[in-house]
Amino acid sequence: MTFPVPTMPAPPVSVVGLGQLGGSLAAALVHAGRPVSGWDTDPAARDAAAARGVTISRELAGVVVLAVPMPVLGTAMADLILDPDATVTDVGSVKAPVLAELGAQYGDRLVGGHPMCGTERSGHAATDPALFTGARWALCLEPGTDLRRWLRVAEVALAVGAEVVPVTAAEHDDAVAAISAVPHLLAAALATAAGQAGPLALALAAGSFTDGTRVIGSDPAFVTALVEANGGPAAAALDRVRAQLDRPWAELVADGHAVRTATRGRRPVRVPLERAALLALGRSGGAVSRRLAAFVEGWVPEA
Amino acid sequence: MTFPVPTMPAPPVSVVGLGQLGGSLAAALVHAGRPVSGWDTDPAARDAAAARGVTISRELAGVVVLAVPMPVLGTAMADLILDPDATVTDVGSVKAPVLAELGAQYGDRLVGGHPMCGTERSGHAATDPALFTGARWALCLEPGTDLRRWLRVAEVALAVGAEVVPVTAAEHDDAVAAISAVPHLLAAALATAAGQAGPLALALAAGSFTDGTRVIGSDPAFVTALVEANGGPAAAALDRVRAQLDRPWAELVADGHAVRTATRGRRPVRVPLERAALLALGRSGGAVSRRLAAFVEGWVPEA
Repeated sequence: MTFPVPTMPAPPVSVVGLGQLGGSLAAALVHAGRPVSGWDTDPAARDAAAARGVTISRELAGVVVLAVPMPVLGTAMADLILDPDATVTDVGSVKAPVLAELGAQYGDRLVGGHPMCGTERSGHAATDPALFTGARWALCLEPGTDLRRWLRVAEVALAVGAEVVPVTAAEHDDAVAAISAVPHLLAAALATAAGQAGPLALALAAGSFTDGTRVIGSDPAFVTALVEANGGPAAAALDRVRAQLDRPWAELVADGHAVRTATRGRRPVRVPLERAALLALGRSGGAVSRRLAAFVEGWVPEA
Repeated sequence: MTFPVPTMPAPPVSVVGLGQLGGSLAAALVHAGRPVSGWDTDPAARDAAAARGVTISRELAGVVVLAVPMPVLGTAMADLILDPDATVTDVGSVKAPVLAELGAQYGDRLVGGHPMCGTERSGHAATDPALFTGARWALCLEPGTDLRRWLRVAEVALAVGAEVVPVTAAEHDDAVAAISAVPHLLAAALATAAGQAGPLALALAAGSFTDGTRVIGSDPAFVTALVEANGGPAAAALDRVRAQLDRPWAELVADGHAVRTATRGRRPVRVPLERAALLALGRSGGAVSRRLAAFVEGWVPEA
């Protein structure tokens, strides 16, 4: 889409939690020549970030990115100094529960987010400044979201090479249940059932089994938290998969192949800068890309 | 396992069907300095094989490898000249139905086989002499299998870098249902259910969805034939997956992770050259490797 955006100086970014996601984001912003500060409770993570050019500070201002595990989201800033005008965002993999928890603390200063990237590795040693390049970054537009703050966070995502997908928290959680929680559960079921089939089956396992079980190589505590935090949508999405498995195989295979191989063409579209239109863009599979979103004077749509 | 084997001159190999599997096998044997002839109904496939040093001939002798699609297995040699002493093997992905069909024609000259390799590509343009390197190659040891002929086929598999897994056809079909048919059906169900979830879900899809649906990118006719030819075992294996999906998620995730990440240590073992012992080796997840199987004078076990 093309994208009318307000003139504003690129705000500073403060990253809380300098593990794989936060450390990569901070490093990517340093690469982009942006002012970025960061904090982590782990001195080794702070040292690693400092070595990459990140200013280590307990003072948080501008766009504050909470890149900490979900269980500590609510307390991660307890000992830090948050600018009252800062915009707060997070990178958690489920959005409705996170917004419910953080919304009470931060009100309309909060913009929920979820960059669709990351690998099976974690921690500051897994930092990669290119992690976000080409990734989709879901950003929540709730009825109470401040659109100017949403744009500030979107600009940060675009600055590190991601594309921004406008979503509601509920839409996001339903979608990631289908494309993240369910693949993890299917991978686990595939692996355990093959384990039941015995050592011969595992010895003969080749590409289709390896691909189909790869994600269950991730830390089980992380995977369990991922699926359980999104329990309702994940259960519903799993029921849809169960129903698919009851279909005649030839039909199921043909339809699955069609979805997997569909080419989703992209074309520039112009979308007014308002909530309903942005959400409609996300719902249609669209995203705001860096190529099209330029920060120009006033609210002038770019050509 | 170490492996006592009879002295015998390496037999010639004739490959019928010079697509990805047959063409790769013929090319790998040429690389190994082995006499190999081949035939394909497609002149382009014959020309490609000839250019790689394969002798093109309708006369089949030694170890004859039927590397044609399963529907034409029974008729592929109708216009060719088969040496009455030749050993016939195949590379089909299901074994009980193939042995039932070909057994009537070839009796104890038949040794069923299934190399666990191949990619989503097909045809002679997808030929790769390294395709079998490190792959497992299941070889059927039925009650009526001639052990000398089984050894001849095993030697061909070892010569191209594969490891030989002794199996019965029924054991093979149960195992590949769990590690091949089921992953294809799960991938199809995952893709179709995500398609139902809508364009937003597909737009947010990242690594776990991409990995989990990769195999359903293969030709649907090929996939449908693969699962339907092994229908009984595939249905049973799918039921085992359904049962896994009903378990508490934390347990399922922990057990799936354990199967996926288990390190299966390998150690040399000595196995007598007889059917029950070889099948026990396969059942335990073992294989005959080239490093250990040397063709030595008499039936002398190697050290």
